[in-house]
Amino acid sequence: MIKIYEVGKIKEEEIFARNEPVAEVGGIVSEIINNVKTNGDKALSEYLEKFDKVKLTDFKVSEEEITAALNKVEPEFLEILKEAESNIRAFHEKQVRQGFMMTAKNGVILGQRVVPIEKVGIYVPGGTAAYPSTVLMDAVPAKIAGVSEIIMVTPPNKTGEINPYILAAAKIAGVTAIYKLGGAQAVAALAYGTESVPKVDKIVGPGNAFVAEAKKQVFGQVGIDMIAGPSEVLVLADGKSNPKFVAADLLSQAEHDKNAACVLITESEKLAKEVQKEIENQLACLLREEIARVSIDNNGKIIICKDLLQGIDIANRIAPEHMEVCVDEPFNYLGLIKNAGSVFLGRYNAEPTGDYFAGPNHTLPTSGTARFYSPLSVEDFVKNIQYSYYTEEALKADYKKISYFANKEGLTAHARAVDIRFEEQ
Amino acid sequence: MIKIYEVGKIKEEEIFARNEPVAEVGGIVSEIINNVKTNGDKALSEYLEKFDKVKLTDFKVSEEEITAALNKVEPEFLEILKEAESNIRAFHEKQVRQGFMMTAKNGVILGQRVVPIEKVGIYVPGGTAAYPSTVLMDAVPAKIAGVSEIIMVTPPNKTGEINPYILAAAKIAGVTAIYKLGGAQAVAALAYGTESVPKVDKIVGPGNAFVAEAKKQVFGQVGIDMIAGPSEVLVLADGKSNPKFVAADLLSQAEHDKNAACVLITESEKLAKEVQKEIENQLACLLREEIARVSIDNNGKIIICKDLLQGIDIANRIAPEHMEVCVDEPFNYLGLIKNAGSVFLGRYNAEPTGDYFAGPNHTLPTSGTARFYSPLSVEDFVKNIQYSYYTEEALKADYKKISYFANKEGLTAHARAVDIRFEEQ
Repeated sequence: MIKIYEVGKIKEEEIFARNEPVAEVGGIVSEIINNVKTNGDKALSEYLEKFDKVKLTDFKVSEEEITAALNKVEPEFLEILKEAESNIRAFHEKQVRQGFMMTAKNGVILGQRVVPIEKVGIYVPGGTAAYPSTVLMDAVPAKIAGVSEIIMVTPPNKTGEINPYILAAAKIAGVTAIYKLGGAQAVAALAYGTESVPKVDKIVGPGNAFVAEAKKQVFGQVGIDMIAGPSEVLVLADGKSNPKFVAADLLSQAEHDKNAACVLITESEKLAKEVQKEIENQLACLLREEIARVSIDNNGKIIICKDLLQGIDIANRIAPEHMEVCVDEPFNYLGLIKNAGSVFLGRYNAEPTGDYFAGPNHTLPTSGTARFYSPLSVEDFVKNIQYSYYTEEALKADYKKISYFANKEGLTAHARAVDIRFEEQ
Repeated sequence: MIKIYEVGKIKEEEIFARNEPVAEVGGIVSEIINNVKTNGDKALSEYLEKFDKVKLTDFKVSEEEITAALNKVEPEFLEILKEAESNIRAFHEKQVRQGFMMTAKNGVILGQRVVPIEKVGIYVPGGTAAYPSTVLMDAVPAKIAGVSEIIMVTPPNKTGEINPYILAAAKIAGVTAIYKLGGAQAVAALAYGTESVPKVDKIVGPGNAFVAEAKKQVFGQVGIDMIAGPSEVLVLADGKSNPKFVAADLLSQAEHDKNAACVLITESEKLAKEVQKEIENQLACLLREEIARVSIDNNGKIIICKDLLQGIDIANRIAPEHMEVCVDEPFNYLGLIKNAGSVFLGRYNAEPTGDYFAGPNHTLPTSGTARFYSPLSVEDFVKNIQYSYYTEEALKADYKKISYFANKEGLTAHARAVDIRFEEQ
């Protein structure tokens, strides 16, 4: 049963404690990366046989396979996928950032260009569950950013096939190539390239502990997005909230993973108790009851606070991945939220609206990293190039200051590079 | 002597090879981090005594020390520091990004807020060299972003003092607290907090191999900027270029570090030979001759290409930290540059203009990471918070699609969270 705490009657650590399972997979992952780096496709085939139980030497998904997949998808689901893509596109198009050019004294020009990253790898988990929504969330912002090669990797099943929903979403989102590869070996292939898999500049997307560790190890060689931890939701709800809605929203995160965390913060002791009871009622109806129950029992928390402002203060310190604000005037509180990935305002804005459909991204910072990380966005697929232009006249006006500064730092060759331009030749 | 290569007559690998010294410091650094995490200030004092040869129990720089430092700085240098700060501020203010709010069907509201990171740590190298320019480059964008606590760490000398230029730059840039700490232990203190050092949300700034490794190890616990490698410059110069200028510009990077790399790309064999000779002449006049000579001999390259377009193609694949374009019409080439940290256009734009004075940042992506990393910018000190609002009517129009999608992913609790709102209560 989910536990109820009252602010002031528990230690701070208990409020802010997070269950952070640390899988010790560093050694295994670095061995896999080295093997792929050295042996390329041969290593990939071996891992496919070992981990995915399938013999494959050609990893690339063919056009025929994609067409066949599209024919397998129910037309009504295809429509939903397209509508979701269109909503995601509309939101992310607002994120497109412009460069700038400015002028300074003596004709100096300074500026910054925004340039797409050329090749991006997208990791999409496979296996028992297939998440076409993740394909859309990762590929659409890349497409909008202008990435020219969007290369998806996802593990095949035992007959060497990819889930048709994944392929349909990839087609709709504009993925340019798909490889049947999963795990740390797929990340290694993208980071270093093999005979058949192109080397990319950045790798994004969620995955299990091996994938997360592999991303961490190749970071620097390629860019990565963030290291995803267990999913989290924090619901801030006033006493007028419907306990059934709140319980259902908490459970929607709990079903993800035994390590997922759901937290309710409310000023109402009555709601706290009703939600506690309602969670038990609803748990019994869930397909993934066992997972959700472990998550609720181990990581679930109901925190009773003095008032909603204190609740927001606590939420800011938790920095949740998802945060619901279930009150009548949710916008009144928006400006006070300092740390959260995605905020769901209103009593009818269950968190799953954002997982599939509304438009904002669902790849979000977990484990309190919303203090410094952003949701995945178009920004993850571009980089800045600074530029400057000095005329002779402009450098003449500034070079003595630059030279003075460089000498103060003991870098005489730096000073010389500007001085030499005004010495007698 | 710097080596001359000709495209077509060398292997591709030779053009793109980089000297990437890998210091094996992982074990030492993780021990330091654990010690600071466990023993806090006590561990910091021990490391100060061990590595910095100074006994200190109070690490914080006092207001009196800052005032004393300002009095020690030459007034003309103080003026130069202030002018540099003003130029850096003008450039970085252009980077400030706005959030957005958009509406969709049925009163749905979607948006994104841009929120400053609350506490940021800035690492500034100390010891033999003092780089006040780095203080400005790291702190000014943080200030503009609205970071409320900018906490600087920098190692003291053997008498427990910080270089006055560093303190003056910190004062001018608006740093809020300064601690006399360096190395991996300073990074650990910022990442986990101690009795006297506040825990921050993100750590930026360059440092030696220990600092870089420590940043990599605490990444995830806190945000970090980039892992800096050896400094690099690539000069693209036509045959009309002055070999003295080009040689001086190459040497200004070479003096940084024995592992620094400088590359000249030109279509003129004549310029190639003149620059080769001129580098030898100028080397003899440098204070840091020994360092520059090792860098030039080991990592210097002059590449003769067919024409400047081929040169830019090579430059894009190298993705240099600094890139000079020494031609008469440098803007004509700007749009073709796809991978570079900072581009210096024109014959009078020696790279040091950007190190100190012009305005663009000097903390730049090295080792080819300009393929996916940006120069340090205001963007490094903010994060996005997404938000959404659904009305009852809006959810009523969408919930069946959301529910269908969730069920397809096998997540029935996700489906339930929207369905339950329209069930008979």
